[in-house]
Amino acid sequence: MNWLENREALLERVRAQMHEKRYRHTLGVAESARQLAVQYGEDPDKAELAGFLHDYCKCWPVDVMRDILIRHDLPEDLLSGEKELWHAFAGAIVIQTEMNITDPGIIQAVRYHTTGRPGMTLLEKIVCVADYIEPNRDFPGVKKIRKLAEQDLNQALVTAIGGTIQVLIEKKKTVYPLTLLAYNDLVSGLDA
Amino acid sequence: MNWLENREALLERVRAQMHEKRYRHTLGVAESARQLAVQYGEDPDKAELAGFLHDYCKCWPVDVMRDILIRHDLPEDLLSGEKELWHAFAGAIVIQTEMNITDPGIIQAVRYHTTGRPGMTLLEKIVCVADYIEPNRDFPGVKKIRKLAEQDLNQALVTAIGGTIQVLIEKKKTVYPLTLLAYNDLVSGLDA
Repeated sequence: MNWLENREALLERVRAQMHEKRYRHTLGVAESARQLAVQYGEDPDKAELAGFLHDYCKCWPVDVMRDILIRHDLPEDLLSGEKELWHAFAGAIVIQTEMNITDPGIIQAVRYHTTGRPGMTLLEKIVCVADYIEPNRDFPGVKKIRKLAEQDLNQALVTAIGGTIQVLIEKKKTVYPLTLLAYNDLVSGLDA
Repeated sequence: MNWLENREALLERVRAQMHEKRYRHTLGVAESARQLAVQYGEDPDKAELAGFLHDYCKCWPVDVMRDILIRHDLPEDLLSGEKELWHAFAGAIVIQTEMNITDPGIIQAVRYHTTGRPGMTLLEKIVCVADYIEPNRDFPGVKKIRKLAEQDLNQALVTAIGGTIQVLIEKKKTVYPLTLLAYNDLVSGLDA
């Protein structure tokens, strides 16, 4: 099925995976991703679709996600790390198997929307930033990231990811190494 | 030469490598390292010696340190990263070649005193914490780390390293990945 031409069927499928608040967030991310795509020269339809799909597995039981990650041989440091990261990697698999999504750009945007990674594509950056700034979001610093997103996507992203690392450390939680590599990569790019 | 039995010659050599303020800091680290060693059951002489040696190269020209790192084939991510880290890795080499230090524990304590690493030894932790809390140090949060060091070396270290990562991010500087791995390792240990 071409999901872009079957918007209602797509939204019904997505809505069935999550509770109401998460669904509202999902619609917000899709909307913000579309706007950022228009602004920064990415395909708006693709960005919106990635937004609709990004949290597909977010409300799934942890055990189901763990099984998916093990079956697909995902790295041990992911399985032993914070469970909050699992939905992105599981989601990238599930949208292929259950929704027949084949666009590698969308799949990677879902996979790396929480952790980031070095060398993020424009679409990956857009979905990641949209996830932080969508209209329903409210956390310390969100206004600053929204403001930066109007001017410079990389500045917005490095501030968002950097802030997440700082909050994790404040809470004495581990930080997924890939997230630090993403941050370092983005910061190095700013200096260039 | 046995440096522990030739304290004056040792201090003269160390003093010749650095300016006055750095030398006072060095004496402070040696003193704090000795105290922590007594408290946590490490060899006080060894801890003090590692303290005397930890910043041996800190005031050396950057080009000299770069040459040492290249000659010893140290990782590219170190050479392309923050220069503030170089003195520790260069120092670990130089104390062997110029001071005939052969104790692997002391060499590793010098090498990892700034970055940390996963699986730090007690001596490495002591030198790293001493570097943060020696009496001349004055930075936001130092009192908290001193207090923690009286009770729990790992808590002191994770707070110190975590704080350093947060400050680097605040300044939009890169964080050496090994430092994050050290932080994650220490945090995981606290939960156990």
